[in-house]
Amino acid sequence: MDERIKKQLEFSLEIDKEKNVFRQTHLSNHGRNENDAEHAWHMAVMAYLLKEYSNEEVDIAKVMIMCLIHDIVEIDAGDTYAYDTEALKTQKERENKAKERIFSILPDDQKAEFTAIFDEFEAYESAESKFAHAMDNLQPLILNDSNGGADWREHKAKAEQVYNRQSKTRLGSEKLFEVVDRIIKENIEKKNLL
Amino acid sequence: MDERIKKQLEFSLEIDKEKNVFRQTHLSNHGRNENDAEHAWHMAVMAYLLKEYSNEEVDIAKVMIMCLIHDIVEIDAGDTYAYDTEALKTQKERENKAKERIFSILPDDQKAEFTAIFDEFEAYESAESKFAHAMDNLQPLILNDSNGGADWREHKAKAEQVYNRQSKTRLGSEKLFEVVDRIIKENIEKKNLL
Repeated sequence: MDERIKKQLEFSLEIDKEKNVFRQTHLSNHGRNENDAEHAWHMAVMAYLLKEYSNEEVDIAKVMIMCLIHDIVEIDAGDTYAYDTEALKTQKERENKAKERIFSILPDDQKAEFTAIFDEFEAYESAESKFAHAMDNLQPLILNDSNGGADWREHKAKAEQVYNRQSKTRLGSEKLFEVVDRIIKENIEKKNLL
Repeated sequence: MDERIKKQLEFSLEIDKEKNVFRQTHLSNHGRNENDAEHAWHMAVMAYLLKEYSNEEVDIAKVMIMCLIHDIVEIDAGDTYAYDTEALKTQKERENKAKERIFSILPDDQKAEFTAIFDEFEAYESAESKFAHAMDNLQPLILNDSNGGADWREHKAKAEQVYNRQSKTRLGSEKLFEVVDRIIKENIEKKNLL
């Protein structure tokens, strides 16, 4: 087996570990915690399904691969809850180390390519990044809403925090932000959000 | 909220159930059983990573969405183990019913689109379908191989059965079939396969 394919298969096996990184979000029907691989899968399908609502035209293959790999660094760095202010302080440093280790398993050209896709997502500048982030926000929102806002209640989340995060959904899709806004308002009304 | 987006969000929530459909394959490091959403995620990342080995040029966005949705019918039909001859007899009928119910949640145009993608995968004719199937075969193989062939030993799988299935990997990628062939031969030698 040549070196190139050996590295690619090693990377393929390494990312299997993402299935053991669990998030704060719970599956619908008051299920167990969701893991990063499931979350990424769900985001990518939703991106394809909802692409008509992107503010700008997007390369959907790029959006999908961004969704699929955006949490790979959490294999080492762990999941950082969106409203955990302490953990957020060290998140960048932890994730940078992980990015270097994990993508270095790949052949050099693909290390560069995957790192660039990851960095583009993080930079929140391109149309693809903005739409992928909209999925990253919308996907846990619909699960949490389906569970009567249980994740927010557990974490005593404030409407202001949720709006801070979700306001960025608007950068990817005005139309989907309308949906998000409606869901948040309903959950404030039901006192699921402080 | 308009009817269209309501249906799209209902579908997005419905497919969450795929995370509760467990397969016979176990995660690496002798982990728990893998579920369909994780399997689909893994296949889609591998498709992007390994696309250079496709026998024919592929539209990678189409390959990825094929990988991502190819098991959605198992929400109703359940997972059918590749070497369970009894369950294989009723698989098609169970999956057809499921396909109709689940994709009917979507707006008509997207029901047609998702059904066509699903059917194209099943038909095993297009370049995209053949390469997506290669991923469907390769992904559990590398997990199982990493676990010393434990899934095969549990099911007393025969080398012939595995070759029957994996010979089709060749239709998608000659190069990846070489890898598969090598892995199978090693597992026969180690008596992990009868």
